[in-house]
Amino acid sequence: MAGPIALLTDFGLDDAYVGVMKGVILRIDPRAVIIDLCHQVAPQGIAEGAFLLATSYRYFDPSTIFVAVIDPGVGSERRPIALKTPHGTFVGPDNGLFGPIAERFGARATDDAGRLSLAGSEVEGVILANDRYFLPEVSATFHGRDVFAPVAAHLSVGVPLAGLGPVLTDLVALPVAGPARRGRDLVGHVVHVDRFGNLITDLTGADLRRFARPTVFVAGGKIAEISHHYAERTGLLALVGSSGYLEVAIAGASAATALGLKVGDEVVLRDASRSEP
Amino acid sequence: MAGPIALLTDFGLDDAYVGVMKGVILRIDPRAVIIDLCHQVAPQGIAEGAFLLATSYRYFDPSTIFVAVIDPGVGSERRPIALKTPHGTFVGPDNGLFGPIAERFGARATDDAGRLSLAGSEVEGVILANDRYFLPEVSATFHGRDVFAPVAAHLSVGVPLAGLGPVLTDLVALPVAGPARRGRDLVGHVVHVDRFGNLITDLTGADLRRFARPTVFVAGGKIAEISHHYAERTGLLALVGSSGYLEVAIAGASAATALGLKVGDEVVLRDASRSEP
Amino acid sequence: MAGPIALLTDFGLDDAYVGVMKGVILRIDPRAVIIDLCHQVAPQGIAEGAFLLATSYRYFDPSTIFVAVIDPGVGSERRPIALKTPHGTFVGPDNGLFGPIAERFGARATDDAGRLSLAGSEVEGVILANDRYFLPEVSATFHGRDVFAPVAAHLSVGVPLAGLGPVLTDLVALPVAGPARRGRDLVGHVVHVDRFGNLITDLTGADLRRFARPTVFVAGGKIAEISHHYAERTGLLALVGSSGYLEVAIAGASAATALGLKVGDEVVLRDASRSEP
Repeated sequence: MAGPIALLTDFGLDDAYVGVMKGVILRIDPRAVIIDLCHQVAPQGIAEGAFLLATSYRYFDPSTIFVAVIDPGVGSERRPIALKTPHGTFVGPDNGLFGPIAERFGARATDDAGRLSLAGSEVEGVILANDRYFLPEVSATFHGRDVFAPVAAHLSVGVPLAGLGPVLTDLVALPVAGPARRGRDLVGHVVHVDRFGNLITDLTGADLRRFARPTVFVAGGKIAEISHHYAERTGLLALVGSSGYLEVAIAGASAATALGLKVGDEVVLRDASRSEP
Repeated sequence: MAGPIALLTDFGLDDAYVGVMKGVILRIDPRAVIIDLCHQVAPQGIAEGAFLLATSYRYFDPSTIFVAVIDPGVGSERRPIALKTPHGTFVGPDNGLFGPIAERFGARATDDAGRLSLAGSEVEGVILANDRYFLPEVSATFHGRDVFAPVAAHLSVGVPLAGLGPVLTDLVALPVAGPARRGRDLVGHVVHVDRFGNLITDLTGADLRRFARPTVFVAGGKIAEISHHYAERTGLLALVGSSGYLEVAIAGASAATALGLKVGDEVVLRDASRSEP
Repeated sequence: MAGPIALLTDFGLDDAYVGVMKGVILRIDPRAVIIDLCHQVAPQGIAEGAFLLATSYRYFDPSTIFVAVIDPGVGSERRPIALKTPHGTFVGPDNGLFGPIAERFGARATDDAGRLSLAGSEVEGVILANDRYFLPEVSATFHGRDVFAPVAAHLSVGVPLAGLGPVLTDLVALPVAGPARRGRDLVGHVVHVDRFGNLITDLTGADLRRFARPTVFVAGGKIAEISHHYAERTGLLALVGSSGYLEVAIAGASAATALGLKVGDEVVLRDASRSEP
């Protein structure tokens, strides 16, 4: 039994774009089980999509086929690709979206800035070039429908990866800076704001453990203790969220609204055992 | 063939939370049929979620497993529970969300304020304690993914309710006042505003029938006749909606916007055969 | 194996309306595969729904059953209907929603203004009158749940179209003007604004080809060249989108916001080889 097909896009739900992709998939594989991972990624939000994908895929069965379409370069030179890993197959544009996943399975930065080599990794990659697995007419603007959905459906019915096109040897890395040292502080950033207004950062539980008494500085405020869950205290709190990343939250309210913060803003870790600057 | 699994949350669709729950379910039960009941319940809107669940469940097959996660107390002392009724099995936090459903099947208020006893009811309840049916790692903040989704999937593949944990004898009631008498009036409240701006109240068709000539007073306005459908007249109208509750609406426009009303605001029933105060 | 059931409504996702329709379908056909085509059609947006349906259906398998519920006249005299075509079966209210589909398969305008005759067409139509295929109680306000969803599910389990009610001989046409000549210009309109703020018009690629050097005039601006994809240039651009219609867009930004345009506004095609007026 083939695994499910999970869709991640920035298409939103105001249009029929996602529904049409599902129609295309079911026409090729009537038995496909299709799941929406998320469609409300900010338009052209490659980094946000990459974050959602990298923190979600491991909860799915390893047989899952992920179709990710955040694709501002559709119709231009960017390559359509598919990656087979030990935990999931990934189909979409080569624009950085799959960089963190590929690194997780051993892809490494090349001398060529901004690229990751698959040599020696657990990732098998192809460039989608065999148009017998596309729709008969491929538009210049909707490869989600014309290329990625039909390729995923063909994978689902058993077409081997190697049949889709030539071998992919390297791919585009996600061009985002992670947390960085500034003196003895560790400076991270908000990478996602969820529905509750929780600010999810790129700082991890492991980062926290490097400090004897970790204190969080955010938007002029200070959080001296790390909580375990949202209901633990009132007011501003910080905790390691369900994806393993530091979150800044307010129980029953939006921290994003209260602090006026958004994706990209700084969140700083400092050791409270040191005198403050 | 197992029934479908229906999901009700306040997670919204801007994140991958719901998609990840589905991934978890399908990893355990690849044949599960998963439905979204609604994910746009207002954050922490337990009463709204309880209303949607109580007015929806009977349209589903009795074999349906409902997973409801509106869970401001996640990680605190609130208990994770499952309830088996003659019409559906319900999985989620014990915070009042399932109170109306339990009452429908015979649960009764106890001396202990705010609790419902299952003794003598048609409801079989358990406290979710057997962690072999959870994900291997349970976070403190996302029991939808780590506890409720995997428990539902295990129920779907045939794990008996009794295997999930100790018997539940009582549960938390939903702390909401229903309609109340004020003199000869019956005072109800807006409990939900739908997408069309229709104001759905806690007043029922049965409440209306207690008045010889029921008149609706709302936001300073008066509706002298009860309509049967939205297209019946222009301007403000009242009708008994598809869930059996009185709605205030305007054909082709939003009554909520026009009247400036929101959840919790009063809607009054008065007998028009009496002189007005 | 029956085809999927695809749902198109203006119910939005803030309520349980769509979820309840799915519950009703699965109770009758537990094996049904249900897809969301779109639920965010503007309330009562019959023309927008008709556009989404007419540009989407052909990507689905011909065995698909489409349930479309944009139904401001629910409970009034408008007829509930089902149409079987060579590419899809369509279930919903007779209010113009299915006009473009019926025309695609040969329905033609009658002398009776605003109606389309099915005589000689490839469309087999019925009026939904046999209430054994409805829910036991039919409300006056939610035929999506009580009539259209159960009828679709019964079609899915093999009930023949002819069993649903008497033959339908004509149906309501969609009352929208297409592009019109104004001197030598062709004047079209915005029919849909997608999530990216792209303005989708009723002008087609075929319309463009009627001009030697087509130039687009929109909101005081002029677009002298037709692009092939969004990433081709910066600033305002025009291209024939993935559905075959002319779109006005801005790469990485919302053309709707930048130009202040909305559904119904004019977009003009003019031949650039002519001197301007």
